[in-house]
This record gives sequence, structure tokens and C-alpha cells, in this order.
Amino acid sequence: MQNIQEINNLIKLISKLPGLGPKSAKRIILKLINNRQELLKPLTQTLSETYKNVARCKNCGSLKSNISICNNCENNSKKYNKICVVENIADQWTIESSSIFQGYFHILGGTLSNSNFKRKEDLLLDSLIERVKKNKIEEVILATSATVEGQTTAFYIQDSFKNINVKISKLAQGLPVGGEIESLDDGTLISAFKNRKGLNSKSD
Amino acid sequence: MQNIQEINNLIKLISKLPGLGPKSAKRIILKLINNRQELLKPLTQTLSETYKNVARCKNCGSLKSNISICNNCENNSKKYNKICVVENIADQWTIESSSIFQGYFHILGGTLSNSNFKRKEDLLLDSLIERVKKNKIEEVILATSATVEGQTTAFYIQDSFKNINVKISKLAQGLPVGGEIESLDDGTLISAFKNRKGLNSKSD
Repeated sequence: MQNIQEINNLIKLISKLPGLGPKSAKRIILKLINNRQELLKPLTQTLSETYKNVARCKNCGSLKSNISICNNCENNSKKYNKICVVENIADQWTIESSSIFQGYFHILGGTLSNSNFKRKEDLLLDSLIERVKKNKIEEVILATSATVEGQTTAFYIQDSFKNINVKISKLAQGLPVGGEIESLDDGTLISAFKNRKGLNSKSD
Repeated sequence: MQNIQEINNLIKLISKLPGLGPKSAKRIILKLINNRQELLKPLTQTLSETYKNVARCKNCGSLKSNISICNNCENNSKKYNKICVVENIADQWTIESSSIFQGYFHILGGTLSNSNFKRKEDLLLDSLIERVKKNKIEEVILATSATVEGQTTAFYIQDSFKNINVKISKLAQGLPVGGEIESLDDGTLISAFKNRKGLNSKSD
């Protein structure tokens, strides 16, 4: 490797991105340098604009651009009566692309856990309660991960709503579609058995 | 997906980088946005510096930073009597990291081929001949790829040196280390048979 400061710094930074290491960083850098005008220049500009303009909305936790209003919030002309609570923006994007849910999103920005020092105040829980009241929301769907942290957070949110007249639901747990029994972990199997559905009307 | 212009542009650009698609681009963008000060800001700055400062050296074809002299060229205090000719900077980096070669590098910047419209003038061949003469080089090692284009380019370079008193060599072809016979292509097998080495002194 040639000892060029800019390149060494780029390798270090790009290697920190998810799924990338020093080898793929080098390939990316060479591609950028070999396409100065078509890739390196516009990428630099767009990253700079993103740094300047894009931030989390303080109301709903989603991403918004400074030059536009948050199109996830109630500022939006569309009216819904459901709100889906997710941990992070990646979860929001995944649910949006499945088209299963039509309604508002609320992005906590993490989970309640000691390991990454997220405090309750950081999770936009107050604004969630405000949004539910203000928009006459009828159902809060807790779509946090099926991890200990995600479920603890869901439980905490559920508890925060105990004096508010709104339906709280959480996502079903069970076999993933396409999942083979032999490769399932115990936790998923236990959930799948506990939550099994009757297929005919015969009672036990 | 939220309709934020900056994010959509970033997804398009990052998806063009080698090994990345829209899904990995989204993960990378979220990582950048969630680490504004530690990743997004320095990456933007470093890319901007790279765009401004880093360019190919017109003499040897390698990368150099404007703020430093080219440390691949003869400007370097080290003196060598060998020069290794490669197609691109990635090849140079790979050979450097193997430590098999100590000497100058000459980076053509491509191969002679009609498909990507590289002309002879673009390949820094004139400066290669100048470098060989000026530095009293004793051996030119052609390390172009074992592809049709790479071998055509090697042959063309060899031809350009026919009136110059310098040893020209090219890399051996044969079994890759760890290569299994059953998985080899015909071309590699033919090369390996043609270039087989006698192991004792008995002649045919």
C-alpha cells in the first residue's frame, strides 16, 4: 500500500461501515478514484448535504430533511388511527417496504438497556404519548424486536399507557415463513407452541 | 422508504460501488446518520480532500497526493534496477502486500482493448520506456492479467522494447497454490502442462 494520508484515512473510515472491511474499502476507493467526476464528486457533495440537512425529527424520531417538513409526522395531510412503534429507522423502512402497515410510525431510536446507556428520556416516549392523545390514535402496535431489550422496552411502553384509553398490541411470535422446525431455536419453538392456533371449532 | 432527496441520492450513488446494492447502501447510510460526528463528518471531509488532492502520477501512473511527492517514482531516494508493469493500482497494492517484489511499479491504467476504448497513448507506455532508460533498469517484469487483453498488452509492450537492451519477463502461468486439478479450467491446465518443470536431471 502506498503511504498516502487521504487514502489511509478513507480506508479506516470505510472499514467501519457495516459489511465492509479493509479489502472492500480499497476496492471502493479505487472505484471512486477511477470515477472522479461520476462518483467521487457527487458522493462527496451528497454526503455533505446529508450531514447539513438530514436529522431525526424530534417529534416522531424519523429522518427528515431540513428543507422539507417531516413527511412521517402528523404534519402529513393523511390521517391514520394507528401508530407503529419501532426501535430504529431500519425497522421502519423494512415495515414500509412490506406494505403491511398503513399508519403513523414512531421511532424510539433504541431500546431500554444498560449496555448502550439509552435512558428513557432519549427514547421519545413522551412525544409518543402526546402523539397518541393529539391524533386520537386507536391502536398502538409495538413492533420492537423479539430480544430481551426489545421486549423490555415494549413492556415499559405498555405500562406507560396504562391510564390512557388506547388499544396496545404487539407483533405475533412464532415460526418465520419458510422456517424449518429442525433449525429453530428453543425460544421460537416455545413461542410457536404457546401461541398455537386452533384450526377447527373443537374445544379442548 | 421515506422520500428524502439526499437519502435517495446517496442510495443511488453508494449502490454503484463494488459489492454494494440498495440494501447494503441503506444499512451504510443509517450507520452514517447514526454516527454523524464520528463517521459522516470525517468521511465527507476525507472524500473531499481525496477529490482535491489525490490524482494519478503522470509519470508512473500510481496514486499520489498533491501535498506530497509521488513516493512510487524515481523521486524516491531508493534505487532499484527492476520495474514491474501492472494494469491498475489494485494490482500494485496486491503485489506490494505480498512483499515478493522490491522495485519500481509502473501502472498502465488499463489494457489495450477495443471494448473500453483505451488507446495506446493512454497507457503511459512512452513514460515506461523513458523510465527504463533513465534509471538504467535491468529487468521489466510484465505482471498484466492472464486474460486476452492483459496478454495482448504484454505482447505489445514486449514489442515496444525490441530495440532496447533490457531483460523482459512475464509472470509464470500454472496451478494456483491450493488449486485442485478437478476444478481447473482448460487454459490453466494447458499452461501448467506446457510449462511443467523437470524435477531430476534426466532428460527426455
